[in-house]
Amino acid sequence: MADTVYDVTTWPGASVDARTDIGRVVNEIIADIKTRQTTQNTRPGAVVYIPPGHYDLKTRVVVDIGFLTVKGSGHGFLSEAIRDESVTDSWVETQPGASHIRVVNTDGHKEAFLVQRTGAPATVGRLGSVVFQDFCLDGVASTKPYTPGNTKTGISVQSDNDAFRIEGMGFVYLEHAIVVKGADAPSITNNFIAECGSCIELTGASQVAKVTNNFLISAWAGHSLFAENAEGLHFSGNTVLWAANLTLRNSHRASITSNKLLSNFPSMVALLDGSSENLISANHFRRVHGDGSSTRYDDLYGLVHIEGGNNAVTANHFSYDVPPANITPAGAAPTIILVRSGAANFLSGNWLVGNVPVKVVLDASSTGTRVLHSALASQLTAYTTDHAFVATP
Amino acid sequence: MADTVYDVTTWPGASVDARTDIGRVVNEIIADIKTRQTTQNTRPGAVVYIPPGHYDLKTRVVVDIGFLTVKGSGHGFLSEAIRDESVTDSWVETQPGASHIRVVNTDGHKEAFLVQRTGAPATVGRLGSVVFQDFCLDGVASTKPYTPGNTKTGISVQSDNDAFRIEGMGFVYLEHAIVVKGADAPSITNNFIAECGSCIELTGASQVAKVTNNFLISAWAGHSLFAENAEGLHFSGNTVLWAANLTLRNSHRASITSNKLLSNFPSMVALLDGSSENLISANHFRRVHGDGSSTRYDDLYGLVHIEGGNNAVTANHFSYDVPPANITPAGAAPTIILVRSGAANFLSGNWLVGNVPVKVVLDASSTGTRVLHSALASQLTAYTTDHAFVATP
Amino acid sequence: MADTVYDVTTWPGASVDARTDIGRVVNEIIADIKTRQTTQNTRPGAVVYIPPGHYDLKTRVVVDIGFLTVKGSGHGFLSEAIRDESVTDSWVETQPGASHIRVVNTDGHKEAFLVQRTGAPATVGRLGSVVFQDFCLDGVASTKPYTPGNTKTGISVQSDNDAFRIEGMGFVYLEHAIVVKGADAPSITNNFIAECGSCIELTGASQVAKVTNNFLISAWAGHSLFAENAEGLHFSGNTVLWAANLTLRNSHRASITSNKLLSNFPSMVALLDGSSENLISANHFRRVHGDGSSTRYDDLYGLVHIEGGNNAVTANHFSYDVPPANITPAGAAPTIILVRSGAANFLSGNWLVGNVPVKVVLDASSTGTRVLHSALASQLTAYTTDHAFVATP
Repeated sequence: MADTVYDVTTWPGASVDARTDIGRVVNEIIADIKTRQTTQNTRPGAVVYIPPGHYDLKTRVVVDIGFLTVKGSGHGFLSEAIRDESVTDSWVETQPGASHIRVVNTDGHKEAFLVQRTGAPATVGRLGSVVFQDFCLDGVASTKPYTPGNTKTGISVQSDNDAFRIEGMGFVYLEHAIVVKGADAPSITNNFIAECGSCIELTGASQVAKVTNNFLISAWAGHSLFAENAEGLHFSGNTVLWAANLTLRNSHRASITSNKLLSNFPSMVALLDGSSENLISANHFRRVHGDGSSTRYDDLYGLVHIEGGNNAVTANHFSYDVPPANITPAGAAPTIILVRSGAANFLSGNWLVGNVPVKVVLDASSTGTRVLHSALASQLTAYTTDHAFVATP
Repeated sequence: MADTVYDVTTWPGASVDARTDIGRVVNEIIADIKTRQTTQNTRPGAVVYIPPGHYDLKTRVVVDIGFLTVKGSGHGFLSEAIRDESVTDSWVETQPGASHIRVVNTDGHKEAFLVQRTGAPATVGRLGSVVFQDFCLDGVASTKPYTPGNTKTGISVQSDNDAFRIEGMGFVYLEHAIVVKGADAPSITNNFIAECGSCIELTGASQVAKVTNNFLISAWAGHSLFAENAEGLHFSGNTVLWAANLTLRNSHRASITSNKLLSNFPSMVALLDGSSENLISANHFRRVHGDGSSTRYDDLYGLVHIEGGNNAVTANHFSYDVPPANITPAGAAPTIILVRSGAANFLSGNWLVGNVPVKVVLDASSTGTRVLHSALASQLTAYTTDHAFVATP
Repeated sequence: MADTVYDVTTWPGASVDARTDIGRVVNEIIADIKTRQTTQNTRPGAVVYIPPGHYDLKTRVVVDIGFLTVKGSGHGFLSEAIRDESVTDSWVETQPGASHIRVVNTDGHKEAFLVQRTGAPATVGRLGSVVFQDFCLDGVASTKPYTPGNTKTGISVQSDNDAFRIEGMGFVYLEHAIVVKGADAPSITNNFIAECGSCIELTGASQVAKVTNNFLISAWAGHSLFAENAEGLHFSGNTVLWAANLTLRNSHRASITSNKLLSNFPSMVALLDGSSENLISANHFRRVHGDGSSTRYDDLYGLVHIEGGNNAVTANHFSYDVPPANITPAGAAPTIILVRSGAANFLSGNWLVGNVPVKVVLDASSTGTRVLHSALASQLTAYTTDHAFVATP
């Protein structure tokens, strides 16, 4: 085997069995890489391979080198929420599997993986092209809605970073699955994130993050996707479940297209704090009543909630089905799209279905909204005359 | 190598060379895994690796453990249909390659891989996170349209299952490439399925299946995708060829978006048996005349055929080009979208092109269909007055 | 290790260290494969694995066998453009990493990998299912806009080919990252192509190419995607940056959907030479002013430029923000969509935003264009009366 490929179970330099503390072993491997790769022109990084098995992570891993690939053989998801509500005496397996890491830090830290480099990025260089692939990060025990829950985080990136990849991973029973601060062009694709407080949080600022082809399954107190000060986010082809909640703050030119979203709660996509020029197109929104309860939003908040200008909502399908007794405020006509504020938002070619009458609502402070073939005459409630309406006949 | 990683060509426990009967070897590996992983908390599964090579599968593999990854190094597709119609004396390669399994069961079974666990799922637990990756399942010999053909099946999942992954696989010359019964959140992505009777069949019932980024190439007697009793299917980013045929029965809230579909036959997407609230958006539909013949549908059936309510067909392109002599019934104006029945279907922002005049047709039993900028005045044929029409000028 | 899996760093047959000339080693491996796989029924190919490390490629690799997988462990991207404009004395890493190949041919050739087989495809068979995965091809030194630049090419496929896969690769500082001639059903997905002259060029002719989920970052003298005589291209879910430029010549039935496009220049999508029946839907187009200068197109050329018929542009968002002093010709109202020629193009449900007044323009030679809810009355400039307009109110 090449000397840039490490197997956590067979690497002779480990001071402990990886099954006892994989975090310590990975840190030792990173230290070993540093002793072998010693100049700025000879640091290609390495692969850390995690074969199928159950591993405890007692020590947080700190990644401060670029080009590191941490890779397993399978996300190994098993629904711990279903397990914890079932009689499992005769179950064949009762915990996640494949390359399965139990996040059980005994070091006082909350993260399984912290990616962070000391020094100003312009001085020491940004962290680039770190890869997490195909293993499972499991918080072991938690309770709905998982935030604050066990307060654990799967992967936290806290230095400016470029071209990271998180692919094929599984996350379960964590408060935060993935947190990335200062992201440039990350690719987060083909992951299975479930039963977490929040799935993906792009904090600080980010540019051109690409989030595609994932399952994102979070409960009602966190976010499927949270982004602040984001430019050019691309969120496409994802299946987002349970409490689908994409929240963008001061974020612009995002493209949210071709996703399948299901939620037991309002605020499936919220464009806040002046988020502008975003596109929401060709998505399927489904709102039902079911597991969980929350007073975070009521049914006047909107499945899509807009506070910002020049956003386009085109060619989507919205389906609302909640028993009248569970609609809040009692007796309200649920809002599908709320333009809370902002100028020149564009709604075109959307179809709304409800078990009760549903509404597109333009608040008084909104201006110049176009509602074109996106609501029947009976479905539009406008608290401003400053809008244009072509009703769906 | 870790003891949870098996190479079918080098594992000493095999009773036969994997090239002679890989099925028997994989079954023996699974048996070995069971002897090593003996409690419900210590069953992470394993990887079964298939290096490039030609392998015969004489014995059906039965997978009844979770978290198993069966993985090769390449889908190895070669068009056997083209080969069988060519003079190949001087061809360099004449059969598929990479990690190539010839499905030649001598055990009386039809499947290469059967995934099934004895016992009620609630009692024994569902099968979870089984992975098939990057190898080729080849039926060896068949004839168009491949169903019934050689009656062979690539992968059949017959127990309730969660979070399965089928990725990067090749399938060729099988009657059924993939059959999954009782699927919850499977991810079927980046596969190359060609020259099969049917590509993907989600039988029984399924929820939130995700089928993305695949090549699906089937002939005229089967289906590209078949789903019954499906909730929340997501079918996006696929290229679907030859006889593109997505058939959904009693299926709801599917999202069929951003696909490229080509067919020599009608019924490219059929929403049947009351399928409702589905979204068909941003797809390109191309209908031509070419290889194959079928009387299964005539040109009045529709490229999109709807029997159900509140479906939305938005922002698609339809292109029809069939020599008049090949249109059936003779002299008919081909139907692009047929709303056969159902209430409140929504057609918005679609463009229709034909080498002959083409039609959107609303049958007499349909009600409340909206046809908005989706047909010229001359392109709509409505057998009911219960509809609304905004003609494309 | 199976005898069909080669590690370039440990294979005993190599005449040179792979770090010195990986090209020579891979050619020797291919020669070895040919000595072992000697009949047309026994050529499954092999895997050539490139562990993390820095490798020089002095000799061009020639691939003339099918089913070969060349695979590394990471695209290892590092922005060489940023590096070359920075003080890097204290940077930890100053060149790309992971499985990193420096393209430094000393053999007089321009390509790192040439895929080509001698003989007529019908006689010797097409090259099938070759795979390039997860390594980095780096041109080492170049200058914007990289074409002609260092005149280097990453992967060039020059024989008719079927079902190729290029996945997870990195390309940087090349004039041409990927050139594929005569492509049938290639899958180009999940790559990171940046700081190249052109990213993907489908020359000659192609059918049903699938280009999905990539980062494509090219400068202003080349193309993000170039296709000529292409049928049924599928370009979806990509993030395209800097000088996003998709140019299609005589290409038909392409589907360009759910992409995020950013450019400092016009001509983000150009449908030329009669390109017809293409779909451009659910994309986000962002035009800004920034790095680079070019006189290739002025602001009357259009972000989308159409010379062909029956193309559909639906449900997109266009955002234009260029300082007036940088708009050319001076004082012009920038064109967002130009229908230069062609019959029956269909624009529906698009939203246009500009820091200055922006336009949809129908040239005199265009006929029958429909502009439906895709421009305000003030945003349409028609040099022909042969069109239909439903203004966005």
